[in-house]
Amino acid sequence: MDPSAAPSHLFDEAIALDPLPDGRWRGRTHPAWANMVGPFGGVIAAVALNAARLSPGRLGEPVALTVNYAGPLAEGDFIVSTRAVRTNRSTQHWVIEIAQEGEGGGVAVSASAAFAARRATWSAAEATMPDVPPAAQLERASTRGRPRWTRNYDMRIARGGLSADFARSGEPLTAEGAADAVSWLWLRDDPPRPLDFPALAALADSFFPRVFLRRPQWTPIGTVTLTTYFHADAAALAAQGDRALLGVARAGRFFDGYFDQSAELWGDGGALLASSHQLVYYRA
Amino acid sequence: MDPSAAPSHLFDEAIALDPLPDGRWRGRTHPAWANMVGPFGGVIAAVALNAARLSPGRLGEPVALTVNYAGPLAEGDFIVSTRAVRTNRSTQHWVIEIAQEGEGGGVAVSASAAFAARRATWSAAEATMPDVPPAAQLERASTRGRPRWTRNYDMRIARGGLSADFARSGEPLTAEGAADAVSWLWLRDDPPRPLDFPALAALADSFFPRVFLRRPQWTPIGTVTLTTYFHADAAALAAQGDRALLGVARAGRFFDGYFDQSAELWGDGGALLASSHQLVYYRA
Repeated sequence: MDPSAAPSHLFDEAIALDPLPDGRWRGRTHPAWANMVGPFGGVIAAVALNAARLSPGRLGEPVALTVNYAGPLAEGDFIVSTRAVRTNRSTQHWVIEIAQEGEGGGVAVSASAAFAARRATWSAAEATMPDVPPAAQLERASTRGRPRWTRNYDMRIARGGLSADFARSGEPLTAEGAADAVSWLWLRDDPPRPLDFPALAALADSFFPRVFLRRPQWTPIGTVTLTTYFHADAAALAAQGDRALLGVARAGRFFDGYFDQSAELWGDGGALLASSHQLVYYRA
Repeated sequence: MDPSAAPSHLFDEAIALDPLPDGRWRGRTHPAWANMVGPFGGVIAAVALNAARLSPGRLGEPVALTVNYAGPLAEGDFIVSTRAVRTNRSTQHWVIEIAQEGEGGGVAVSASAAFAARRATWSAAEATMPDVPPAAQLERASTRGRPRWTRNYDMRIARGGLSADFARSGEPLTAEGAADAVSWLWLRDDPPRPLDFPALAALADSFFPRVFLRRPQWTPIGTVTLTTYFHADAAALAAQGDRALLGVARAGRFFDGYFDQSAELWGDGGALLASSHQLVYYRA
């Protein structure tokens, strides 16, 4: 790295990919994005999207991304392969895999992405943004005792934060569960960074697991699969800049080890920039 | 086929797969499931899920399915390939592709599925089922002028049906758009068929495109990608039997050629059996 260059953002460091002669990409896990086990899933999603974005022949901008967390990603290097499955007039489908070599290696992530060349059409809002106090009127949520990656986000919770009595693993439940698993919060990268598609893909996975709201005790959880739809173009993301987004998260059903979690990410101008869904494993 | 056997259901005929010596599967499009172009996407999703279900070494039951509609599927035979990307202690990830040979062929569908061996845990409902009159009190929705596959479902709409003035392509809009794109309806296979995972995967795609509610004029549309999460086990689906499910469908944002559509499928006992999300292309 050129030491005279401006210091890069931790997020850009984490999603950086080096091209390999065979068309694949080499990346590496970043200590600042560590989760309980392996890297924060949002950064893994951003790496998968970034690999497709960088691939030759890529058409337009992302409209959909699905990331399947098939196995653990160990600290160290990984290899990303991309393949354009089909290119149509205005859409293009990619499949992406992230794998590691050595003992315990193999495919850790299988993903797919749809890109599209949008053109202006009749458009309309349907979901509505909740009415929430400005970020400046809310306190920044504590990340004490939480995984390293959470310190890379500034989160200000208007509804549905974790109880102060939130119990660690093994401790008895000391708080009652919340009446519902809905959260409203302002969130942005910290330090601030202008919004783009990889950052939005990562933010979509930044909401804490809904099971912790309804059953306030730490328990092992893991995202099985994550799907994000992008409802904005690059110009709209650039216009949002580095200001906080409003995030909404909820759940559908907790059943025998798996629950679904949905999120919306709203620009501060009131436009829905992305909606995201995931299925999460939990032990209870 | 043995002519003395009981007549099979059209759905089972449509998702039937013959094993090939190399481990792949051969299927074929079914005229009773024809859409505007190619087969109904719900049946394609069911074929992808069925191929993974039938594959040797498959673990447990499906918990998630993503189907990317990459290109057109022509009338005739297709080949389905499945690969177990990773098998963990309680989960297993599959990737699936559906391809055709010949001119215009290639990969038409890329898909992924997660299977899991569930065990009993703390569980809880979070989303709530809308209060809707019983199916018997509602009229069956007309399928006049609609694609062939719609006749394979009995749908009774309690909220958010298509306007009687719904305009065909090229005709001017004769009706105002609905205030929102929310539908509530009872739906089941016709003729009735006991519920299982492939049938549920198909039902998740049976809701008409939300753009037709807000902008009541026929326009070309196509699902780009569909993700369904299963919140029930085989026993719960068997208990539902062939009775109607309650479906809920809504949208998030219509923007420059693409919108997101979400659906819930409720058992008549009030349990959420599946939630489903898709990104849809529209021309307007």
